[in-house]
Amino acid sequence: MALLYVIKDWDADAWLGAMRALNPGIDLRSWPDAVGRAEEIRYALAWRPPAGALHRLANLQVIFSLGAGVDSLLAGGELPPVPIVRVVDRNLTMRMSEYVVLHVLLHHRRQRILDGQQQRRQWRGPQQPAACEVRVGILGFGHLGQDAGRRLRDLGFQVAGWSRSRKHVRGIQSFAGAGELKAFLNRTEILVSLLPLTPGTHGILNLALFRELARDGRLGAPILINAGRGKSQVEADIVAALDQGILQAATLDVFETEPLPPESPLWSHPKVTLTPHNAADSDPGAISRYVLTQIRRFEAGAPLQNVVDRNQGY
Amino acid sequence: MALLYVIKDWDADAWLGAMRALNPGIDLRSWPDAVGRAEEIRYALAWRPPAGALHRLANLQVIFSLGAGVDSLLAGGELPPVPIVRVVDRNLTMRMSEYVVLHVLLHHRRQRILDGQQQRRQWRGPQQPAACEVRVGILGFGHLGQDAGRRLRDLGFQVAGWSRSRKHVRGIQSFAGAGELKAFLNRTEILVSLLPLTPGTHGILNLALFRELARDGRLGAPILINAGRGKSQVEADIVAALDQGILQAATLDVFETEPLPPESPLWSHPKVTLTPHNAADSDPGAISRYVLTQIRRFEAGAPLQNVVDRNQGY
Repeated sequence: MALLYVIKDWDADAWLGAMRALNPGIDLRSWPDAVGRAEEIRYALAWRPPAGALHRLANLQVIFSLGAGVDSLLAGGELPPVPIVRVVDRNLTMRMSEYVVLHVLLHHRRQRILDGQQQRRQWRGPQQPAACEVRVGILGFGHLGQDAGRRLRDLGFQVAGWSRSRKHVRGIQSFAGAGELKAFLNRTEILVSLLPLTPGTHGILNLALFRELARDGRLGAPILINAGRGKSQVEADIVAALDQGILQAATLDVFETEPLPPESPLWSHPKVTLTPHNAADSDPGAISRYVLTQIRRFEAGAPLQNVVDRNQGY
Repeated sequence: MALLYVIKDWDADAWLGAMRALNPGIDLRSWPDAVGRAEEIRYALAWRPPAGALHRLANLQVIFSLGAGVDSLLAGGELPPVPIVRVVDRNLTMRMSEYVVLHVLLHHRRQRILDGQQQRRQWRGPQQPAACEVRVGILGFGHLGQDAGRRLRDLGFQVAGWSRSRKHVRGIQSFAGAGELKAFLNRTEILVSLLPLTPGTHGILNLALFRELARDGRLGAPILINAGRGKSQVEADIVAALDQGILQAATLDVFETEPLPPESPLWSHPKVTLTPHNAADSDPGAISRYVLTQIRRFEAGAPLQNVVDRNQGY
C-alpha cells in the first residue's frame, strides 16, 4: 500500500515530512520523480494536480484533496473514477473562522476609519452600533460557513446563511436555493462569501448582486468579505461598487488571478483590505492526521467521509 | 421620587432622553441647573461628578455609575455614604468583547504586517500559527474579562485570566492574587488588560511587567492590549519596550491623559494601534434600562446588584 503525492505550487517536502512524522514506516511516493511501481499506489494526495498525473494508477482507491476547495482538482483534467475526499479539518476550520471574525469585526468596529484618525492625530469616536444591531450574511453556508456563523452569532451579530440546501443552526436564519438569494441579500449589511467555485458561483459577486445588499444598515453602505474563491468575484465590479458607494469597503483574500498582479487597482484602493490567500492555510500535520484517519476507517470497511459530489463541484 | 443626573464630559441630553423614552412620567433632574428640591432626589446617575455635586441630598439612596469603571466617581471627592452600583450590562459587555476579540485577532493574524505588504504590493503569506497554538492572558478577570475570555477560548486560543480572587470558567486557567501574577505573565504571549484603576493597579503595566511575558511564543515577542484604564500603564515604558523589542506591538484604547495629547509619541509609533477610549461605549438606552430595573428591584425590597466595594475600588 503506497500513497502518492501530486502537489503543485506548494512545498511537497513539508507534506511528506508531516506524514512521515505521524507514521514513520509509511510508503510515500511523489509525482513526477518518485512514483515507483504505479500499481502499488492505493491513495493519492493532491493539490492542483497537472492533467494526467493521476492516470494509469490501476489500483487507486481514493483521491484526497489537500485543501478545502476542490475546484482546481476537478479542473485538472479527467480524473480516475474513484471517490474524491475533501478536507474537513478542525484546524483549517478554526483558521477560517479566525479570519472571518477578524474582518467582520474590523469593519464593524470601523478600524480603517480609526486608523486614518490615528494618522491624523484625531481623537474622535465614530458612532458605533453594537453587534446585535448589525446583520451579517454568509454566502456559502457549509461546514466552514456554519462554524464562522456560530462564532459571529455568539458575538451578538444577527447572522443568516445562504446555501443550496436548508441548514439548521440555532439562532441563524437559513436561506436556501436560488429563490431565496434575493431575500438573503436584501437583509445583509456585511456579506461574507465562502462559496466554492462551481459553474453556478463563477462571477456571482458582481454589481447586480452588490446592489441587492441592505442599504439601511447602522454601518452605512454594505461591506464585502470574500474568503472563498477569487473567480466568484468580478473585480472590476468591486472597484466600481466601491467608487460609487454601492459598497463601503471590502476585504479580499482571493482573486481572479493569483498571485494578484502588481497592476491590479485593488492593491492601493483605499477601501480595500487584501490578504494573500492565507485566510485558512492548510496545516500539513493536521491534514495528514485527517487523511490517515480516513484511510484507516476506509481499510476497516467504514464509509469515506466528506466525499465530493462531482456534479455539484464540492 | 426623583433621579438626578450628574454628568461631565458626556452629552447629558442623550441620557435624559433615553430614560424618558423608557419611562415618560419619570421625574428627571440634572445637575447643576435643574436640581430642584434636593430632598426629593432618591437616586443619582453619575459620570465623573465634580466634587460636592452629590452632597446635601438628604434622601439619596443609591448612586449609579454610568460606566463600567468607577475610578473617576470615587476620585471625585467625598461621596455620600450610600451604595454605589456599577453598570454590568450585556450591551456594554458585548462591545468590550468585540474590541478584545478584534485586537487579539488583528495581532494574531498579523494584520499590520499584511497591511504593510499590501502597501508594497507584496504577495506573501506570513507564517501563521493557529489560535490553539497561542496563549492569551486577561489581566482583570471580572465580568468583562470572563466574557471576552470565553469568546477567545471558543475561537481556540489558550486563555488564562488573572484576578484578585480565583475564578472558575470552563477551559480557562485562573491565576489569583499577587503570588500568581508572575506565573500568569510568564505563560502569556498576548496580554489583554481590563484592570480597573485602583491604588494597586496604578502604573502596573510597566517595563518590569513586560519583561515577564512569554518570549517563546509562536508569534514572536509579546503583545499588549489595554482597554482597561490609562493610568494603569506607563506610556514611556510602552514606547521603550516596543523600541527594544520587549513588546512586538500594542493596541491601546486608554491613556494616562485623555484625550491623548497631540505631542504623544504613541500617535505615530509604527507598532501602536490606538483608539479613542471607545472600546465599550456606554449605550444610554441599554444602561437606562439597567438602572430602571435595579431601581424597581430595590424599591421592591430586593438587594442591589453589582455594588462597588469602596475599599477595593471596583
